[in-house]
Amino acid sequence: MTTKSVNKIAGNSEARPVIGITMGDPAGIGPEIIAAALEEPGVQEICSPLVIGDAGIMKAALKLKGSSLNIHETQEPGHALFDPGTIEVMSLSQLETTLPNPWVPTSQGGRAVIDYITRAVDLALAGEIAAMVTAPITKTALKMADSPFHGHTEMIAHKTGTTNYAMMLAGDKLRVILVTIHIPLSAVPGKLTVPAVVKTISIAVESLKERFGIENPRIAVAGLNPHAGEGGMFGHEEEEIIQPAIKKAVDEAKIRNHYVVIQGPFPPDTIFHNAAQGKYDCVVCMYHDQGLIPFKLLHFSDGVNTTLGLPIIRTSVDHGTAYDIAWQNRADHTSLVQAIKMAVNQARHFKVQVTCQNKKGRKYELCRNNHIRALY
Amino acid sequence: MTTKSVNKIAGNSEARPVIGITMGDPAGIGPEIIAAALEEPGVQEICSPLVIGDAGIMKAALKLKGSSLNIHETQEPGHALFDPGTIEVMSLSQLETTLPNPWVPTSQGGRAVIDYITRAVDLALAGEIAAMVTAPITKTALKMADSPFHGHTEMIAHKTGTTNYAMMLAGDKLRVILVTIHIPLSAVPGKLTVPAVVKTISIAVESLKERFGIENPRIAVAGLNPHAGEGGMFGHEEEEIIQPAIKKAVDEAKIRNHYVVIQGPFPPDTIFHNAAQGKYDCVVCMYHDQGLIPFKLLHFSDGVNTTLGLPIIRTSVDHGTAYDIAWQNRADHTSLVQAIKMAVNQARHFKVQVTCQNKKGRKYELCRNNHIRALY
Repeated sequence: MTTKSVNKIAGNSEARPVIGITMGDPAGIGPEIIAAALEEPGVQEICSPLVIGDAGIMKAALKLKGSSLNIHETQEPGHALFDPGTIEVMSLSQLETTLPNPWVPTSQGGRAVIDYITRAVDLALAGEIAAMVTAPITKTALKMADSPFHGHTEMIAHKTGTTNYAMMLAGDKLRVILVTIHIPLSAVPGKLTVPAVVKTISIAVESLKERFGIENPRIAVAGLNPHAGEGGMFGHEEEEIIQPAIKKAVDEAKIRNHYVVIQGPFPPDTIFHNAAQGKYDCVVCMYHDQGLIPFKLLHFSDGVNTTLGLPIIRTSVDHGTAYDIAWQNRADHTSLVQAIKMAVNQARHFKVQVTCQNKKGRKYELCRNNHIRALY
Repeated sequence: MTTKSVNKIAGNSEARPVIGITMGDPAGIGPEIIAAALEEPGVQEICSPLVIGDAGIMKAALKLKGSSLNIHETQEPGHALFDPGTIEVMSLSQLETTLPNPWVPTSQGGRAVIDYITRAVDLALAGEIAAMVTAPITKTALKMADSPFHGHTEMIAHKTGTTNYAMMLAGDKLRVILVTIHIPLSAVPGKLTVPAVVKTISIAVESLKERFGIENPRIAVAGLNPHAGEGGMFGHEEEEIIQPAIKKAVDEAKIRNHYVVIQGPFPPDTIFHNAAQGKYDCVVCMYHDQGLIPFKLLHFSDGVNTTLGLPIIRTSVDHGTAYDIAWQNRADHTSLVQAIKMAVNQARHFKVQVTCQNKKGRKYELCRNNHIRALY
């Protein structure tokens, strides 16, 4: 099967990793941006995309887009054909294609997206797909389906038994990684600890090396306060938490023989300019908007969200379900194309051996070149 | 005198407002960026610049820049010639031109900058200059000179008896105005009150109308928390403070017959993109870095800081003294040029009548067209 499919791609001597794309909320823009992204010439040339979702909904999305692609249904990646002109769909639901209009989340939709995500994680852990790329869902739909999770990240972390993970937003000009994420601004100072900052710096260093192929990453760490506290005049977190964390992260990197640059804490209002000029590979940010404000200003349409620290590769669009414009053929699929490309790039670099354990004690062993197993 | 000077500008039929430029810390980059800015062809064409500082230091700065300009000393704006090829300097100190190297703040320097600023405020209040533009100083130099003030803004506010003022950063693409400024991030939520947000919105509305010539300003108000709190999941300040403040500001604008747009609270990570696309004239920001991070990303070199709500016009560079590169002919004068241009523009629009009172009970009355008095 592997040889057969590779041979079909005339002129492409490099095997294309299988990328599982979860369809996201059927009432959101996920199906139509997937349909649009898979028609972009650059996408199917670099990967073998496998949509994990609903064949009927995907057919409706292809029709909406006026797409010339056909659907081939498959129940496991090994049976996929990856023929030019087709989309491989692992269909896990048979939802009504006449969804409520205007589009709203439903409990059926919520249950379906949980199935898509769960299956994608299983396939990634088993090495049957090289990476998973997720289309958007909402907390509301998950809640309607009685899920205990707020979103993809928590669900995937739980299922892979991961506690040390971090959210990175990445684009051509800027990468940011967050120490704290979805909490009130007033809770941020209380959540900043030396271990939390060290953990985020370490995940940044290791991920840039192992997943982005940057041999000697250069990390900038932002301060928390205006002017990074200006010598304690506007806050003490820099002296008490961030500086000690940087020192510890530098020491740990030395022990591991990582040749890295870890600098800071920098005044938050100028560090993103410097990073975007190419002086740093990533900025470690203390809170959501410290990272998201500059990131979205530089990468409003083409940003990618990736969860790092997991034993699998997961990238995502950096936008929501956009129910207000769903199924109107108005959604921009740029972020999804970039998320697929980043998943492919991470799959080409990610070669670590990982043993992880889920809450029920089940252990997963990933082979050293797990993505090789997922090449067709 | 007025007629004489205007006549000297061949081909320029419009009178040029007198702009007082305080020299800032002599050990910083102020003198050299002033020397450079006043040689920019566009600057002397639109205004009559009067440097309030030190003639000896300015001579040294002109020499450093290899400038062809000469200095003409004057003790009052009415005696200035504003001849082409000269810089008018109101010299208030006779500092040593062999300053310590590397450059550091000194108590003499601190006392001198206080004199420059104080005189500029007096001249602006008296209508003898149309606006003041300030070159950078440091808190350290002020402290060494026993000043009770942290910086320009507090000093100027005190001297003009102003309590309702706000800091705006302005550029071609984005304007931001701050509800809180130089306080630790942990203190921000506690400082946000309905009156504080209303005050900042009102200053933005009035200033955009009166100083920027925007008849019907469109104001976006940022939330405090990620996703603007996402319905209370990540904080309640949006519901409890910012929404009521917006409502109150809208009501007040209606009473005053101001046709304005005041909208929000918006998710902080996307509103700056929308504002920079031209949808809003200004974003009201809850804390320093919320406004400064996006502003500096878009206007790293050409941003202007302006204090609004004062009875006078004050603009400033948006950078510091940069002692590390001072007197090396390396400083970028773009921000100062922009600050001078903005001062001129504000002077052309600012026609309000203001009565203010300082702490000693002395009242200032500014004539309706005070800047007209300051045209030569």
